[in-house]
Amino acid sequence: MSNGDIFLGEVIGTAILILFGAGVCAAVTLHHSKARAAGWIVIAFGWGFGVLAGAYTAAPLSGGHLNPAVTLGVAVDTGEWGKVPLYILAQMVGAVLGAVLAYLVYFAQFQANAEEDKAQPTLGIFSTGPEVRSPVANTMTEVIATIALVLPILAFGKNDGIGIGQIPGQDAGIYGSGISILLVSLLVVGIGLSLGGPTGYAINPARDLGPRLTHAVLPIPNKGSSDWGYAWVPVVGPVIGGLLAGLIFNAAF
Amino acid sequence: MSNGDIFLGEVIGTAILILFGAGVCAAVTLHHSKARAAGWIVIAFGWGFGVLAGAYTAAPLSGGHLNPAVTLGVAVDTGEWGKVPLYILAQMVGAVLGAVLAYLVYFAQFQANAEEDKAQPTLGIFSTGPEVRSPVANTMTEVIATIALVLPILAFGKNDGIGIGQIPGQDAGIYGSGISILLVSLLVVGIGLSLGGPTGYAINPARDLGPRLTHAVLPIPNKGSSDWGYAWVPVVGPVIGGLLAGLIFNAAF
Amino acid sequence: MSNGDIFLGEVIGTAILILFGAGVCAAVTLHHSKARAAGWIVIAFGWGFGVLAGAYTAAPLSGGHLNPAVTLGVAVDTGEWGKVPLYILAQMVGAVLGAVLAYLVYFAQFQANAEEDKAQPTLGIFSTGPEVRSPVANTMTEVIATIALVLPILAFGKNDGIGIGQIPGQDAGIYGSGISILLVSLLVVGIGLSLGGPTGYAINPARDLGPRLTHAVLPIPNKGSSDWGYAWVPVVGPVIGGLLAGLIFNAAF
Amino acid sequence: MSNGDIFLGEVIGTAILILFGAGVCAAVTLHHSKARAAGWIVIAFGWGFGVLAGAYTAAPLSGGHLNPAVTLGVAVDTGEWGKVPLYILAQMVGAVLGAVLAYLVYFAQFQANAEEDKAQPTLGIFSTGPEVRSPVANTMTEVIATIALVLPILAFGKNDGIGIGQIPGQDAGIYGSGISILLVSLLVVGIGLSLGGPTGYAINPARDLGPRLTHAVLPIPNKGSSDWGYAWVPVVGPVIGGLLAGLIFNAAF
Repeated sequence: MSNGDIFLGEVIGTAILILFGAGVCAAVTLHHSKARAAGWIVIAFGWGFGVLAGAYTAAPLSGGHLNPAVTLGVAVDTGEWGKVPLYILAQMVGAVLGAVLAYLVYFAQFQANAEEDKAQPTLGIFSTGPEVRSPVANTMTEVIATIALVLPILAFGKNDGIGIGQIPGQDAGIYGSGISILLVSLLVVGIGLSLGGPTGYAINPARDLGPRLTHAVLPIPNKGSSDWGYAWVPVVGPVIGGLLAGLIFNAAF
Repeated sequence: MSNGDIFLGEVIGTAILILFGAGVCAAVTLHHSKARAAGWIVIAFGWGFGVLAGAYTAAPLSGGHLNPAVTLGVAVDTGEWGKVPLYILAQMVGAVLGAVLAYLVYFAQFQANAEEDKAQPTLGIFSTGPEVRSPVANTMTEVIATIALVLPILAFGKNDGIGIGQIPGQDAGIYGSGISILLVSLLVVGIGLSLGGPTGYAINPARDLGPRLTHAVLPIPNKGSSDWGYAWVPVVGPVIGGLLAGLIFNAAF
Repeated sequence: MSNGDIFLGEVIGTAILILFGAGVCAAVTLHHSKARAAGWIVIAFGWGFGVLAGAYTAAPLSGGHLNPAVTLGVAVDTGEWGKVPLYILAQMVGAVLGAVLAYLVYFAQFQANAEEDKAQPTLGIFSTGPEVRSPVANTMTEVIATIALVLPILAFGKNDGIGIGQIPGQDAGIYGSGISILLVSLLVVGIGLSLGGPTGYAINPARDLGPRLTHAVLPIPNKGSSDWGYAWVPVVGPVIGGLLAGLIFNAAF
Repeated sequence: MSNGDIFLGEVIGTAILILFGAGVCAAVTLHHSKARAAGWIVIAFGWGFGVLAGAYTAAPLSGGHLNPAVTLGVAVDTGEWGKVPLYILAQMVGAVLGAVLAYLVYFAQFQANAEEDKAQPTLGIFSTGPEVRSPVANTMTEVIATIALVLPILAFGKNDGIGIGQIPGQDAGIYGSGISILLVSLLVVGIGLSLGGPTGYAINPARDLGPRLTHAVLPIPNKGSSDWGYAWVPVVGPVIGGLLAGLIFNAAF
């Protein structure tokens, strides 16, 4: 895979992921949405199928990481660190792009929200936040939830018959093709349902930081705080989790 | 694929898609339905598995586009425009047929609805409408949501091991067989959950215009307006989105 | 496949299907259930994954029809009618067995229900009933919904790469293996969500008649009527639908 | 597979399973969770995708049983009993580990819960309990639900094209790879939806006993009883069910 393909693949794939993810949060949060208050099952499947859409689209170009925690876990596993900065940069660019696209899809809803007596806070559409604010506990939640993402992804590659590594010329991708990305998307649904309760499951530094930057910059009326005091948790937690997952994988498999 | 097979495949497949899609909207809208008020998750999975049912049925005959936006995206990609009118005509015929079938399935419910004090408006069962009426914003929503449908569908074909192009003699289809249609159906579930909030995600001109025509003609008692003033948005938006997806795909892959 | 294998496969598979199907209806209906009032999405996925469980179990023995309407559609398609009575007999036996098993799983709940002031009617756990009683409309609903089941099942067999016909020595089965049964199970989820509103989607004569017989015979306290006046609709509708699906398939494919 | 690989695989896989399973129960039970009161559909998919995550991770090492009832059913089928104690020991260790991890993920929520006027009982997050306490009926429910798990798992192996037995050198595993674990995870979703109402579907002695031990030992504030009087039911029922499933499978297939 060329550097250009990797960059393009991760930008497009992460943009699609965040478009779906921020989109589903807007869908259940904003009043003038047909899916308002549609519940946690909708959130979890919206994010999960965003992974499906983004990663299958990116896979032929970049392997479809879409997440610095995955890229770091793969690097620990393979020992190849050279393209890690390229992946992470592209993921950040893609996350910002996806957040802008989600804003455009719900443009009229954001406008209408700002004019209401009980305007919904908008940060939760873009980035995660804790139900109980406790930096240590919140970070611990993100570390464990990210291990629960990256360790299975790495282990999926040890299963025959699900398509890992079937893309010709692929050398750094972890997903491959076949049904492996489908499995990862259902895994993400499961993480959302099971482990998303305390912090909203960032499990991906780009997924949280990119949209938070976007939220801070976009001219959303009545948008409220971007809560920069919490911003380090969904970066540090998933980074630690991705690295730990790589170490556990190397030790166990 | 012969012209006759293409026509038959697209008519049958689109009819099944709309039967499921209009069906699930009737199911959650009409009072005398076991699924009344069952929520957005039901809508999204009903439409998504309608894609699964319709496209796997149509695929051996026509490739299973079922959507002029998909047909246009494929034409931009392949440069073959000759059969585009045939596909679109068949999709429109199928959409009307499917809407009639959904009406027949819920015939007693439509009758009972008309006799109630608080009769539900029926157009939403057949066609989409915006939560906030804003032609520019609504079109933008449909454009982006349609790109989020057609670009991944085109990119799925670059993944090995999911079955694209495995039908012998298939030359114009995009879906192929294997698990590719399953992935598209879950993609459509995701689009519904994430991007359907503002306009009800037409993302398919035939899906909206065919049933709207049917709604206007069918003798549904107390049926209310067919809202022709909005009818151009879910046609123009998806057409632009399908063309843009083809252009982005050709530039990036 | 030997006659003994066919009989055994259809009995076991249909019993599992009805265990899951009647089970999920008990789960959402009876008060002392953790899933009480859990909604239509639960019903539809419970039945769908019951198809997955039953049909993959039966497939190596009998092909996994589990439904006289499927057996009739296959017979119209293949012209082989000799084993149709054997299939249908086994499906009826399995349906009764499955209903008894569901009763045993929810035994304490049925007892507790009978002692409540507002005892739930129990027939809906076993068999279908219409929201608006109209024999013609109800039959039409069942005919169309059954076509929407059997026509795609037959057409799935024309798709490469999903596993139809991959069981060595299989000669009458329609499902085969691979992912085809998974697709059928999701198709059944879709039919439930989209077309189940008016009549509760029998789409299978054995699924309705077997449990209705069981309901009539079992010593369920305070069980209410078995509604034999309606019993012919979910038999006649699916039989007509299965035959029509076979005829449409033969004409179109 | 070496004994070390089996032990490691079952510990890791069962820990992931229980992390997701206890996690989703915490998510819907505890007040300061984004998924509080999210309903039975969330519980069932959370557990099911926990199977997907844990079993695909464990499969290359141990085959991915994660459940003594599965291990016993396989032993009855194959006649190989030598590694049964190793499997069960590892499953118990993994279940305890997973319960601790779930506690850590929801640490702040458990603390906040204890300080509320209406603190939620916490045992239901870790272990199962009956809606109607009746040892005979509860055991019967667990026996039948476990047969509905283990018999299909054994029968899945008779289907071609879904990946059973495709792991090189695998000799005791039942799942294999390909889509078989995906099917098992959806089967578990179905069992939850359909058969989980009366007792909360342990269907796995380690899944219930391990977390119950953990609940008894962990310093959870205000945690309430560990209900040891019921603890034998979700052990005895699944053990009987797993053995019966093996016997039925051997007789029928």
